[in-house]
Amino acid sequence: MEKRQGVSNTTFLSLLEQRWQENTFVCVGLDPVYEQLPAFLKEKHSIEDAFFLFNRDIIDATYDLVCAYKPNSAFYEALGEVGERILVKTVQHIKQMYPHIPVILDAKRADIGNTNHGYVKSAFDTLGADAITVHPYLGKEALAPFLARKEKGIIVLVKTSNPGSNEFQNLPVGDKQEPLYQVVARNIAENWNTNGNCALVVGATYPSELKLVREIVGDMPMLIPGIGAQGADIVATVAAGKDSRGEGMIINSSRDIIFASHGDDFAKAARNATRELQMAINAHR
Amino acid sequence: MEKRQGVSNTTFLSLLEQRWQENTFVCVGLDPVYEQLPAFLKEKHSIEDAFFLFNRDIIDATYDLVCAYKPNSAFYEALGEVGERILVKTVQHIKQMYPHIPVILDAKRADIGNTNHGYVKSAFDTLGADAITVHPYLGKEALAPFLARKEKGIIVLVKTSNPGSNEFQNLPVGDKQEPLYQVVARNIAENWNTNGNCALVVGATYPSELKLVREIVGDMPMLIPGIGAQGADIVATVAAGKDSRGEGMIINSSRDIIFASHGDDFAKAARNATRELQMAINAHR
Repeated sequence: MEKRQGVSNTTFLSLLEQRWQENTFVCVGLDPVYEQLPAFLKEKHSIEDAFFLFNRDIIDATYDLVCAYKPNSAFYEALGEVGERILVKTVQHIKQMYPHIPVILDAKRADIGNTNHGYVKSAFDTLGADAITVHPYLGKEALAPFLARKEKGIIVLVKTSNPGSNEFQNLPVGDKQEPLYQVVARNIAENWNTNGNCALVVGATYPSELKLVREIVGDMPMLIPGIGAQGADIVATVAAGKDSRGEGMIINSSRDIIFASHGDDFAKAARNATRELQMAINAHR
Repeated sequence: MEKRQGVSNTTFLSLLEQRWQENTFVCVGLDPVYEQLPAFLKEKHSIEDAFFLFNRDIIDATYDLVCAYKPNSAFYEALGEVGERILVKTVQHIKQMYPHIPVILDAKRADIGNTNHGYVKSAFDTLGADAITVHPYLGKEALAPFLARKEKGIIVLVKTSNPGSNEFQNLPVGDKQEPLYQVVARNIAENWNTNGNCALVVGATYPSELKLVREIVGDMPMLIPGIGAQGADIVATVAAGKDSRGEGMIINSSRDIIFASHGDDFAKAARNATRELQMAINAHR
C-alpha cells in the first residue's frame, strides 16, 4: 500500500483510491443474522460476543482483499442496545487494525436539514464511519449536513437493486422523458458534488441502467450491490460499472461471503469467496 | 374516550380515529436537544434521566390534547447507546400510561425487502411504536415487510416540508407532466394501501400541494409537519389538509411546543402551546 500523505489522503475517496490501486473492488457486507452464525460461536459466547467475534474473524480473514466494509444498520438495530454495541465494536476493530480500509455505514438515512445533524453525528462522530448511504428524495438542500462533511463519503441511492425499484426510479421525467434515476444521477454529479465527496448506489441487477449511469457521472465512485444472493452477473456488472480507468467500483457481497460456510471454517470460507469474487472482477475489468 | 373494542380498535388507524373524535389533531414532536433542556434538569440529573424526565413531563402535561407523539429517531441516535435507552423509556412511558395514544417513530427508513425486516423488528417489536415514517424511493415491493404489518401505520414521505423538496418531488412525470409527489400519493392510495395501514407525509409549508394530495387520496390520514418553527400558516394548512369529515390530519409541532419555555415551567408552557395549536386547528376545520 502507498504511504498515506497528509489530510487529503484520509478522506473516504482517498482511502478508496488506495484500495483500488491494490486491485481490490470487493466490499464485504457485514450483515450478520443470529440464526446463521456458526453453532460453536453461539454455544461458547454471549449474543454480543458471538456477533462481534463473527464479524472480527470475517474482517481478519478478508482485510487484504477488500476495498471497504459495509455494515447495514438494520441488522444491528434489530438487536436493540446490544446491536448498537456490536456495531461500535466492529467499526472500532476495523479502525484500529486496518485504518486504511474505509467503513460504509449502510443506513439509508435522510431527513430535513436540522434533523440530519443527528444522523451525521451518530454515523461519523460517534461511530466513526467513513461513509453513509442516503435517500435522494428530499433533495440536496436537506442533505447539506451530510454533504458538508468533505472528508466523508455521501453515497446516494440512484437505482436500487430490488425487483420493484422501477416503480418510481424509472418514471419518465420532463420533456425528454428521461428516467428519474438518471435525473438523480445527473443532479448528484453536476450539483451535489462540490466537495467531491459524493458516490452513487446502482444495483448490479440492472446492468443497462448501471452503464447509463456510468456515462452520466464519469469516474465517480459507485457502490454496486446485488451480486451473489441477489443473482446479478459479475461479467455484465464489471463491463457496465467500471470507470475510464477500469476502477470506480465498490462491488458489495454480503450473504455469499459471510455465510459461505456455517461451520468452524466460516472465516476461511469467507476469504475464499472474497478472493473468488476479486479474481472474477479483475479478470473482466 | 370511547371504549376500545377488540383487535380492530388497537390498530394505529383506530387509535388515531378515536383521538380525532376527541377533537385532537396535534402531534407533539419529541425531539429534545441537550443544550435546550431546562437548566434545573441538567443540574440535578444524569444525561439519560434529564432527557427522559423532560420527555415524561411534556407527555404528562399534554396527553389529553394530542392525537399522537412523534419522537424523531435522529435526535436519539445522536446520543448513541444512551439515546436508545431514552427512546425506549419514553415510548414505554406513553404505552404504560396512555396506551390509547399512538406513537409514531419518525425514522424515515427504507431498504430492500430482506433488510427491512430489521427495521420492522426494531421499530415495532422492540420499541413498540405504532407507526413509522418511510421513504418511497425503493417502491412498494421493497417496503412489503412494513406494509404487511396490518396493525401498524406506514407513513410514506410524499411532499416534504423542506425548502428544497422541489428538486425531485415536483419533477413533471409522464405524458401528463404530473409532479412526482402526486404520482407517489396516487400509488400509495391505489396500490400500497391494501391493508388500510398507509398514511402520507405532506409538509404544511406547501398548502397548494397539500390540497392536491388530499384530492388524490381521499380520507387517508396525513402527517403534516412544518407548523411553527418552519413557518407554515395554520389556517391555510387546515383548509388544505382536512378530509371530508374535517379530520384526517396529524399536525406536528416540535420545537414550538417542547421548547415553548426553557425554564422550570417548560411542561406548563408546552401544554399552553399545544392547547393554542389545538384551538387554532379546531377553529378552522
